[in-house]
Amino acid sequence: MYFVDGLQYSNWTEKIFKEMNVAGLAAVHVTIAYHENFREVVTNISKWNNYFEIFSDLIIPGTCAADIDLARQSQRTAIFFGFQNPSPIEDDISLVEICYQLGVRFMQLSYNNQSLLATGCYESDDPGVTRMGKQVIKEMNRIGFVIDMSHSAERSTLEAIALSERPITISHANPVFWHSARRNKPDVVLKALAERDGMLGFSMYPHHLDNGSLCKLEDFCQMIARTVELIGVDHVGFGSDLCQDQPNSVVEWMRNGRWTKETDYGEGSADNAGFPPQPAWFSNSTGYPGIAKGLADVGFDNVDVAKICHGNWYQFFERSFGPEH
Amino acid sequence: MYFVDGLQYSNWTEKIFKEMNVAGLAAVHVTIAYHENFREVVTNISKWNNYFEIFSDLIIPGTCAADIDLARQSQRTAIFFGFQNPSPIEDDISLVEICYQLGVRFMQLSYNNQSLLATGCYESDDPGVTRMGKQVIKEMNRIGFVIDMSHSAERSTLEAIALSERPITISHANPVFWHSARRNKPDVVLKALAERDGMLGFSMYPHHLDNGSLCKLEDFCQMIARTVELIGVDHVGFGSDLCQDQPNSVVEWMRNGRWTKETDYGEGSADNAGFPPQPAWFSNSTGYPGIAKGLADVGFDNVDVAKICHGNWYQFFERSFGPEH
Repeated sequence: MYFVDGLQYSNWTEKIFKEMNVAGLAAVHVTIAYHENFREVVTNISKWNNYFEIFSDLIIPGTCAADIDLARQSQRTAIFFGFQNPSPIEDDISLVEICYQLGVRFMQLSYNNQSLLATGCYESDDPGVTRMGKQVIKEMNRIGFVIDMSHSAERSTLEAIALSERPITISHANPVFWHSARRNKPDVVLKALAERDGMLGFSMYPHHLDNGSLCKLEDFCQMIARTVELIGVDHVGFGSDLCQDQPNSVVEWMRNGRWTKETDYGEGSADNAGFPPQPAWFSNSTGYPGIAKGLADVGFDNVDVAKICHGNWYQFFERSFGPEH
Repeated sequence: MYFVDGLQYSNWTEKIFKEMNVAGLAAVHVTIAYHENFREVVTNISKWNNYFEIFSDLIIPGTCAADIDLARQSQRTAIFFGFQNPSPIEDDISLVEICYQLGVRFMQLSYNNQSLLATGCYESDDPGVTRMGKQVIKEMNRIGFVIDMSHSAERSTLEAIALSERPITISHANPVFWHSARRNKPDVVLKALAERDGMLGFSMYPHHLDNGSLCKLEDFCQMIARTVELIGVDHVGFGSDLCQDQPNSVVEWMRNGRWTKETDYGEGSADNAGFPPQPAWFSNSTGYPGIAKGLADVGFDNVDVAKICHGNWYQFFERSFGPEH
């Protein structure tokens, strides 16, 4: 069994890349921007170019589904870039294509706040996809650059699903029916996503889990079974939101960027401000084989386990990246 | 007969692209930066992305030799990007790879002035390739990004030829033995270039021609014959330096950029400050078939005419772009 992870943002080191290889993680969508502007994101891509050079025996740049096969053949991991915020395209729609040329394949239309394109899930009101947002959706559709609405508010998310002519993703979130959190998604969103052939990546980030860090693997897998009952087995995968070995300054950057002089705690709180501990069964990517077993234990057959662990993402990558044929 | 042009910088319009197609111009190395910094060059690339979208029936982006074949099969022209100055990489060596990812395939280590990498032909002293220049040559060699020394001074040029582990180009210049001009090249440079398997592109820019705008096609072709006697027939092609339909403000930008508060006239002079008129036999790309005939008239056989018109550039592109295998 091999795996595709629909979102990670770890403190990348050789150790982590080796764990990915050991886990059979053939592809990861990796965040390269939270609040960075264009020039700053280019510096982040430069950093990755350097990783690809230094760690060429462990990772490869991923730009199409076939790179997953290439990674598997050589027991490496293909890295697919994504933005959690549209800040890197600034107010310039032409930067969508430029970023695609630099290898970026996913972009959230908003992070937690209002962006130039859509509304984030921490705003009190959501006026929906903006004028520029509609233009950028069209451009992303043309190019084959995936729209991600993981952190967006409900109306914006539903509008993006409807406006986009190609399937979109919620790469890292869980259903509200299981654990009510601002970042988790109600049934109406999950159904709309699946009806348009989109993909949900289940998150293993404690704030998105029932019982948080103490969440049991069996409960997590039961939640997956219930979600499959709701939206079918073809539109779900994993998007772990793993932030391995990151210092707490990183979660502060995610939440506060440069937009506030006060402190925003996001999903945390003043007395629980840092990264929460990961559940015991997923402290890092090597937890994946155990999750595959957990899925079998709650009744999924081999075919469906494979779909959830990699097959659905593979097909989503195949139909999503690049111009439509 | 088809053609490859080793350098143009025209005021791009549908009319010009159509003329290229009519002329059988299958590939052109197009300048996209004179003094632009990184962010400005990205805007220039955005402009080209837009041309590729709007004029997809006339031009295609060119990144490898096979794109020349692709362009020919569909009677279009492949556009290969180049910088006449290293200004777009600023002081950041990682931008070499970023620019390559954005499709750029040629970079001059200097324009007319001293750059961070090498010395331009208008400086009074040439201390040779700089410390950063040596690092950038190594990086360009690794990536398969072509070093162009058209505007560089002699010592820097000879050092770049010697330091580079892959062939370089002087994409647009003529021999000094024919017309003594600061931008033309002495025998010692031409021989060193050819000995390392590099390419010279003959310029049709009047300041590089004997008798300037009045230069006769026959004289131009005789000059090519003499150059071939000097360095062989496998290392020469065309690099017209055509600046079609450009207003004189453009030649002012080329010469003055943002580096001076006075006016530099470069190859011109105060009373001849603008673009000089093109010779009658090359007012635009449709002059190419006539030049092919001119080469035959001075005694080149069909095989050699084909080498000069496209074959040598084709092979140079084939061995130069991308990592070495």
